[in-house]
Amino acid sequence: MSVLTIERKILKKNDEVAAENRQLFKENNLYVLNLLSSPGSGKTSLLEKTLAQLNNRIKLAVVEGDVQTDNDAQRVAKYDVPVVQIVTNGGCHLEAKLVQDALVNFNLKNLQLLIIENVGNLVCPASYDLGEHKKVVMVSTTEGDDKPMKYPSMFRVSDAMVINKTDLLEYVDFSMEAVKKNALNINPELRIFETSCKTGEGLTDWIIWLENEIKNNNK
Amino acid sequence: MSVLTIERKILKKNDEVAAENRQLFKENNLYVLNLLSSPGSGKTSLLEKTLAQLNNRIKLAVVEGDVQTDNDAQRVAKYDVPVVQIVTNGGCHLEAKLVQDALVNFNLKNLQLLIIENVGNLVCPASYDLGEHKKVVMVSTTEGDDKPMKYPSMFRVSDAMVINKTDLLEYVDFSMEAVKKNALNINPELRIFETSCKTGEGLTDWIIWLENEIKNNNK
Repeated sequence: MSVLTIERKILKKNDEVAAENRQLFKENNLYVLNLLSSPGSGKTSLLEKTLAQLNNRIKLAVVEGDVQTDNDAQRVAKYDVPVVQIVTNGGCHLEAKLVQDALVNFNLKNLQLLIIENVGNLVCPASYDLGEHKKVVMVSTTEGDDKPMKYPSMFRVSDAMVINKTDLLEYVDFSMEAVKKNALNINPELRIFETSCKTGEGLTDWIIWLENEIKNNNK
Repeated sequence: MSVLTIERKILKKNDEVAAENRQLFKENNLYVLNLLSSPGSGKTSLLEKTLAQLNNRIKLAVVEGDVQTDNDAQRVAKYDVPVVQIVTNGGCHLEAKLVQDALVNFNLKNLQLLIIENVGNLVCPASYDLGEHKKVVMVSTTEGDDKPMKYPSMFRVSDAMVINKTDLLEYVDFSMEAVKKNALNINPELRIFETSCKTGEGLTDWIIWLENEIKNNNK
């Protein structure tokens, strides 16, 4: 068995624009989350559950990133929150400049929380800082407990991990202990949540954490 | 709701190297598959089942593409087939040049089938021709039946689609009819297989198709 390795390229320019976004968020006292996962882990479902809980007491907005279609933005728009859909048209990740262009559609002064749902991809989006406060990576129980080992960058740069689809645990070969150990080996600071966006299980912890994050940002 | 669109970049250079690979495969009468999916859809499991069935009657080899770790190559190596692991070290797809570099590790004249397991990613690998005969995209029942609509490029460039994890159908919100309709709307030529790599259901059709492909290539 042979192993070949190629070099990774980092885009410096993106970091400069991300710093501009970060400054803009600070000036407007706006807390920003970057939500990341494979396709189909449940990012939009978590977003819907979060909007349903928080929309009546927190002023929030959403940026949706997708390769194609505005299906996710349509789902989110039902909650009557401001939403901008970025269609990358084949692009595999959001970049800081795309988010910056999207921001002109919002009245930032009136917002407390902005959630950016990134393109479904466990690789590329890890390299692109958008200026957000926290990155949240989702994995689902149906994807296997080895994902942190196989996509370590994503788990290294994330602040929290949401393990979704806990309602399917009994039907899949997935060890909750193993996925946590694999993730914490890469990033011991990772805050971990276990959720089922289908049954609602575990969502309270997630909502409490998010509200505390926003509160701490407002201090 | 606003919609922004960015342009997609295509790498011309990659197509030139892919053409060189294609010529090399032709000279050696070697049939090559490019296996694509999200992380955790079951590419390595399908590969293991395929090796177990074909290894005694077809001379085959495997190229494994991963962002990090050689776990998949270790799984495949148990079947006593030649395997090269490409670690992209953060890169989100295989390119024709990486495959070309890997090929020097094999005795191509002695092989009938080469399976390339691409990096787990439904976006970027769609744009990179590796010189293969056919692209096979996998989706699993736990990812949602909307994936063809949201990642249309991948389904447009693929020749076959394997719908995996049929053993979980009764526990998830997934319509077999919808996923097929969504995929065939994008690519009416798509050959479709339904499999459970866990129970073995549906694998016979897949194996028969693959053997026919190899036979037709040898004519």
